[in-house]
Amino acid sequence: MSAVMNIAIAGLGTVGCSTVSLLQEHAALYEKRTGKVLNIVAVSARDQSKDRGIDLNGIEWASSPLDLIQSDADIIVELIGGSDGAAFDLVSAALDAQKHVVTANKALIAKHGVMLAAKAEKANVSLTFEAAVAGGIPIIHALQHGLHANHAERIIGILNGTCNYILTTMQKTGREFADVLKEAQELGYAEADPTFDIDGIDTAHKLTILAALAYGTEVNMDAVHCEGIRHITATDIAYATELGYTIKLLGITQQHGDALEQRVHPCLIPSNAPIALIDGAFNAVEVVGCAVGRVLFEGQGAGGDPTASAVISDILDITQGQKNHPFNVPHARLSKASVMAMDTLSCQYYLRLPVADEPGVLADITSCLAKEKVSVERFVQKTHGDDQPAELVLTTHVTQEASMQAALSQIKSLSSVRGDAQLIRMLS
Amino acid sequence: MSAVMNIAIAGLGTVGCSTVSLLQEHAALYEKRTGKVLNIVAVSARDQSKDRGIDLNGIEWASSPLDLIQSDADIIVELIGGSDGAAFDLVSAALDAQKHVVTANKALIAKHGVMLAAKAEKANVSLTFEAAVAGGIPIIHALQHGLHANHAERIIGILNGTCNYILTTMQKTGREFADVLKEAQELGYAEADPTFDIDGIDTAHKLTILAALAYGTEVNMDAVHCEGIRHITATDIAYATELGYTIKLLGITQQHGDALEQRVHPCLIPSNAPIALIDGAFNAVEVVGCAVGRVLFEGQGAGGDPTASAVISDILDITQGQKNHPFNVPHARLSKASVMAMDTLSCQYYLRLPVADEPGVLADITSCLAKEKVSVERFVQKTHGDDQPAELVLTTHVTQEASMQAALSQIKSLSSVRGDAQLIRMLS
Repeated sequence: MSAVMNIAIAGLGTVGCSTVSLLQEHAALYEKRTGKVLNIVAVSARDQSKDRGIDLNGIEWASSPLDLIQSDADIIVELIGGSDGAAFDLVSAALDAQKHVVTANKALIAKHGVMLAAKAEKANVSLTFEAAVAGGIPIIHALQHGLHANHAERIIGILNGTCNYILTTMQKTGREFADVLKEAQELGYAEADPTFDIDGIDTAHKLTILAALAYGTEVNMDAVHCEGIRHITATDIAYATELGYTIKLLGITQQHGDALEQRVHPCLIPSNAPIALIDGAFNAVEVVGCAVGRVLFEGQGAGGDPTASAVISDILDITQGQKNHPFNVPHARLSKASVMAMDTLSCQYYLRLPVADEPGVLADITSCLAKEKVSVERFVQKTHGDDQPAELVLTTHVTQEASMQAALSQIKSLSSVRGDAQLIRMLS
Repeated sequence: MSAVMNIAIAGLGTVGCSTVSLLQEHAALYEKRTGKVLNIVAVSARDQSKDRGIDLNGIEWASSPLDLIQSDADIIVELIGGSDGAAFDLVSAALDAQKHVVTANKALIAKHGVMLAAKAEKANVSLTFEAAVAGGIPIIHALQHGLHANHAERIIGILNGTCNYILTTMQKTGREFADVLKEAQELGYAEADPTFDIDGIDTAHKLTILAALAYGTEVNMDAVHCEGIRHITATDIAYATELGYTIKLLGITQQHGDALEQRVHPCLIPSNAPIALIDGAFNAVEVVGCAVGRVLFEGQGAGGDPTASAVISDILDITQGQKNHPFNVPHARLSKASVMAMDTLSCQYYLRLPVADEPGVLADITSCLAKEKVSVERFVQKTHGDDQPAELVLTTHVTQEASMQAALSQIKSLSSVRGDAQLIRMLS
């Protein structure tokens, strides 16, 4: 008879239910792969009476997540969510009790990752979170193993399926953000309160975990520059398309000496770049390694089964006796990176300006740019008929953020600028 | 002072030199990541006097690969190549001597993988080969870890950069195979003897390793149906493009009960499919997992640094104490899959026929197809002017290979068919 690995699961939402179902359905496959029987001994969830369409026969119901620690479980699977509260209490107590922990909780790891890693190391147990970033894409495994011969020259990711669905739909249909968001909510692709997704916070959580793994730095959510996609208009997407670009919400990280660049914002990407082709709710991560060059991983970033695929991959690793430090190196060897000030960022910019349709406007604007040494790459001007302001769209060559912002602030004060300026960074 | 991991490298071609350079250049990074100093103690290569542009100071030259086993090396890195001879002798002897082995040698693993896995298990050492498949793409790690919660419903791969470069160039330029091959040879993208690449053998080696890992079956190169790309013409590529397809050399594997489908052949892929967009010398692997759905990995499949990235990732895993069975499960638990007969394959087909430009031809051909219950999906006929045979191109709905071949054999015997028929499978 095979040895047994006992598992307890906290949280029976979509991912929790998929995890239970897959563990049951593929029991024989997992036993073949690990040589052990994976046995769900206990679960917890807010509502015990709800019919979730899964078979919980023979599995103990714990009256609270913390009670799972009293079960025979070797591995505690945390699928409650949230950076604090019940999820934090459970993970923290489980590690103290020398239980392995598998979690899909990016907010928790982004906020408390280093402290929890210290607990896991002290207890000599695993703390794994493949499901926390990009759902089913095994990007954490890749950074911990397959790509770890590389210094990452840059990592960029489409890490939020909701935003990518909204932007893709806006591009395909020409519809406005609010309209597409409403539809996404009706279809279940966006939460009733979409703030975490559309304001970039979810992407920032995931990005800072990737950065910590890639650069051996302490995970530091506060160091991420974070902008969302609420302000992106159908007009911007149309101009971007005309100029040969696609707008995506990207997480970008890169090391500059001791300073770590971590930024989340909408970005114009050349439409023929592989990452620009990632449509709908798919996620993708592109790593440029010093040896391997460009590697792209693409797959479903959310949903019950894809996320459970990642959760169970961690369970199988632990069952096979794989041991990693949560952030690859012992937490004490993680460095505290300084924050790269956004002012010092070098990139190209897209600028859209509603302007008066009158002589001299262009001269005024280009003189503001020239004063700050911002050099224009391309340039489109459109008039929209009588009494409507014209629209001026330009892209710049690579310049410093500080110069671009200084120029923009002067441009905004010009009397010929007739509405809100839209500035979007470009990926070069 | 950190503990030391001693490494010996056999073979100093492009990959060997990149491995040496990267180990030296990133010594501090690798020490941070593993907590150990990676130390190259010995190398071997046919020509000791050749200037390879790398620093071999302080590294012992072994007079033969086998002599490396007498060094202090904990890990033997085999980069000689070839399924037998010196590479086999070295790997076999190294495992017997309880040395870990890292190899980039697909031919060796495809032919002797199971036997060598048995040796590694007996000696309780690692035998790893991430670099053997798809160069820098960490697909072996992914199948062993990140995706192992999944039964793979299908794996398809562009696994040979030479073929992909040739087919991409043919498509972009309209040039013929022989012409592009010659150029690829001049540019160093194809070997002087390109047989292994263009006849699909290299792809078959890699495919059978992926199949063994994904399905827990004994690696079995003889069970792969293997066709290359020599017969693909500029005309076929032009028709495929017109019909909305791209021609790629694919490796495809899928399990059908106890039978394993393993096939390598050129394939028409819908041009908007993500894997159709992989251009030039890039490789890609698409895994459709039962839980994760479609995941695509894309990167450089060859070249010194990308391949060395994979070699060193294995070295780092071993240094960190990671232990895997070479094929994920103990070799004794690998099953012997039966071979899926190609006759029983179900797929769509592209058929191009040079035919006489005269009445009744189409009726003759469609009647052969109808007799075998092969149903036509699309259909193009082109005439090329006086006295030239016309060309008839059709695609079928999904049908059995046996029916398609039977219909084709009847079609070939028609007097109105005026040259070689071209049959290419399609990806559905």
